[in-house]
Amino acid sequence: MTAELICVGTELLLGNIVNTNGAYLAKKCAALGLSMYHQSIVGDNDKRLEETIQTAVKRSDVVILCGGLGPTKDDLTKEVAAKVMGKKLAEDKHSRERIQAYMENYVRSHPGTKITENNWKQALLPEGAIAVDNENGTAPGIIMEENKTILILLPGPPNELIPMFEDKIYPYLRKKQPEVIASEMVKVCGIGESQVETDIADLIEKQSNPTIATYAKTGEVHLRVTAKAENDKAARKLIKPVVRELKVRFGANIYTTDEDKSLECAVVDLLRNQDISLTTVESCTGGALSARIVDVPGASDVLKQGFVTYTNRAKRKYVMVKKSTLKEYGAVSEKCAKEMAKGGCFVTGSDAAVSITGFAGPDGGTEQAPVGTVFIGCCLKGKTVVREFHFGGDRSKIREQAATYALILLRECILENFERRNEEKA
Amino acid sequence: MTAELICVGTELLLGNIVNTNGAYLAKKCAALGLSMYHQSIVGDNDKRLEETIQTAVKRSDVVILCGGLGPTKDDLTKEVAAKVMGKKLAEDKHSRERIQAYMENYVRSHPGTKITENNWKQALLPEGAIAVDNENGTAPGIIMEENKTILILLPGPPNELIPMFEDKIYPYLRKKQPEVIASEMVKVCGIGESQVETDIADLIEKQSNPTIATYAKTGEVHLRVTAKAENDKAARKLIKPVVRELKVRFGANIYTTDEDKSLECAVVDLLRNQDISLTTVESCTGGALSARIVDVPGASDVLKQGFVTYTNRAKRKYVMVKKSTLKEYGAVSEKCAKEMAKGGCFVTGSDAAVSITGFAGPDGGTEQAPVGTVFIGCCLKGKTVVREFHFGGDRSKIREQAATYALILLRECILENFERRNEEKA
Repeated sequence: MTAELICVGTELLLGNIVNTNGAYLAKKCAALGLSMYHQSIVGDNDKRLEETIQTAVKRSDVVILCGGLGPTKDDLTKEVAAKVMGKKLAEDKHSRERIQAYMENYVRSHPGTKITENNWKQALLPEGAIAVDNENGTAPGIIMEENKTILILLPGPPNELIPMFEDKIYPYLRKKQPEVIASEMVKVCGIGESQVETDIADLIEKQSNPTIATYAKTGEVHLRVTAKAENDKAARKLIKPVVRELKVRFGANIYTTDEDKSLECAVVDLLRNQDISLTTVESCTGGALSARIVDVPGASDVLKQGFVTYTNRAKRKYVMVKKSTLKEYGAVSEKCAKEMAKGGCFVTGSDAAVSITGFAGPDGGTEQAPVGTVFIGCCLKGKTVVREFHFGGDRSKIREQAATYALILLRECILENFERRNEEKA
Repeated sequence: MTAELICVGTELLLGNIVNTNGAYLAKKCAALGLSMYHQSIVGDNDKRLEETIQTAVKRSDVVILCGGLGPTKDDLTKEVAAKVMGKKLAEDKHSRERIQAYMENYVRSHPGTKITENNWKQALLPEGAIAVDNENGTAPGIIMEENKTILILLPGPPNELIPMFEDKIYPYLRKKQPEVIASEMVKVCGIGESQVETDIADLIEKQSNPTIATYAKTGEVHLRVTAKAENDKAARKLIKPVVRELKVRFGANIYTTDEDKSLECAVVDLLRNQDISLTTVESCTGGALSARIVDVPGASDVLKQGFVTYTNRAKRKYVMVKKSTLKEYGAVSEKCAKEMAKGGCFVTGSDAAVSITGFAGPDGGTEQAPVGTVFIGCCLKGKTVVREFHFGGDRSKIREQAATYALILLRECILENFERRNEEKA
């Protein structure tokens, strides 16, 4: 079955709100195995809304509309949908009672307010339609089944729409849809998107079910493997060999196959599992790296200390960078990054320290080290590695990349250390 | 003129990403005075994309497409747009050179990567089209002018799309659009949105031209005053008295009327103007506050040092929090926040220090101080203020609010100190 989404509201066309309902409903439809090929946004205008619904019901099995069910004159979705389907509106007694109860309760808890007449408009339903109770507001949802088309009307506020969809619409659609879609995620770091695509060009070339889609993030590429089958187990069975092949091809560059796990979370897990304590020493990123690490619940297990040594003085005072290094090589240098990392370990006694020093712009930078030049150092159990990067983009983009590649370098060093120790044992 | 938006990408139809580009571009088109009646999302499918573009060019003067300009086989936007407009693709020498330079730089700074062949696809342009340089990626933007239709193709990643739109597309469209919309921004901090709305209910009630729109941010409310007129000067003249009235009503809570100035930028300006050096001492925010300060170009003039004292040990060792304080009151306490701020000033010798300590969750928290409890301290020239907050939301939302209110508290303390000194002088 195909599904299509129409979000109604002039505030969306003006960009005053971001269409999070669209993403939410799309994700749910994908999970239901509904193929979605179109989403539209249209304003509170009857003519254009009518055209949009007409186009949608012609080409899709399920059409979901959200927004425009409220009590005001702007709210036209129900009226226009009924017109397109050739139905009259009539008051639904059950819905009227629910609205009355809801409003009486509201008025009781908000002294000075009263029930306004326009609320009763929300009790009107197209003939033959199913009312879907709204537990968090006044406007009921509406399901219209006509010939082979299902039209679903949902209220716009996410706190009304989401519970209604979860509790009532999802189970309803589940029964209508025999096929399921399942997907798994493979997250790769330290390789660019075009490289990843090239490495799996043959897999993408011959794909049909499952499919592989790539999404580029800063310093990362996410690969989503999606399969369609008669049930979840069969879909997972189709996905499994593809994920296995991706693991062979990207090896240690895969930091997780967990949908919800971030790179920083994977790194904190590694640190915790290997019992490695960490100190961060940041110059141009100004704490962005430590902030990402602390964003992981339980980061206190591994993060011993963070220094933001933005000035030369602070670099000398807190992490023992030598005066001569700053004088001869400058703060943005391999030598300074190395001393920052080593000093971070030494002064705190932690097992590992990551340092970042660079020119994030817009000012600063030299001929040898222009804006975008960043040195990232990692000292782990006495061994120190420094890598030089030349990042593009503006100040905030350069800093974001620097923090990401610091996580990637730290991860590499931990994995190498782990291998080295294993080899030594062997 | 009418504008229409088509966002291309299967990841949008699957709900894997929220369409923030849509909201951004819609807002910009509204600011340009372009009337937008339709937005669509379509996947990486040539047939459906072709139909969508055909419908759009028939009904709208300006059609903006975003996404699908990259190097992979999935990226079809340019190819399909050229087909609809009846144009062939040919290599653009200038774009090829730019891609080459970008990729060579990338490969240099990312050892082990190489330039893959599929990148050159991005240098192909429809005949007669204008290439729009991409300062943050490889795929150039494209403008096609054909009969009375303008087709604009933009790359999908927001960090490429937004600077390209701001710097190149906005000025281009500005020239095409005869009626002028001008707007001014008033940014308020430290008052909630509903309070702001109440304070200006009478102004909003009687508005028509100019209009006032409010946007709630964490700890801030942005008020946009927008007017339409035959030229920019006339529009500004309409806006002026409204902005003046807002200044009367919100006084010192207004931190800027500069569209592009962030709260952290306003605070860094204040610090610099008052010649106050700053140290940050962060626990639960883990460097998020210092990272926001360092996000401001030239922050090195004011930020002396940042400490991420996430553990009790680090609080004692680096900023002299007393053992007895931690034992008797705990790390999340008024007393600890006070000692962190005072200690931050003392050990670094800076004029001001801001401290943050709290429970960001999901674990931690006590009966007296549940998750969301955050103490923020500010020591300025020997005077220390601590404020207690109870933030809602998840871990990352709590930390974001904590960093924002730390900036707000610091700003208040600087303004008070300034007034006190003026009074002493008088």
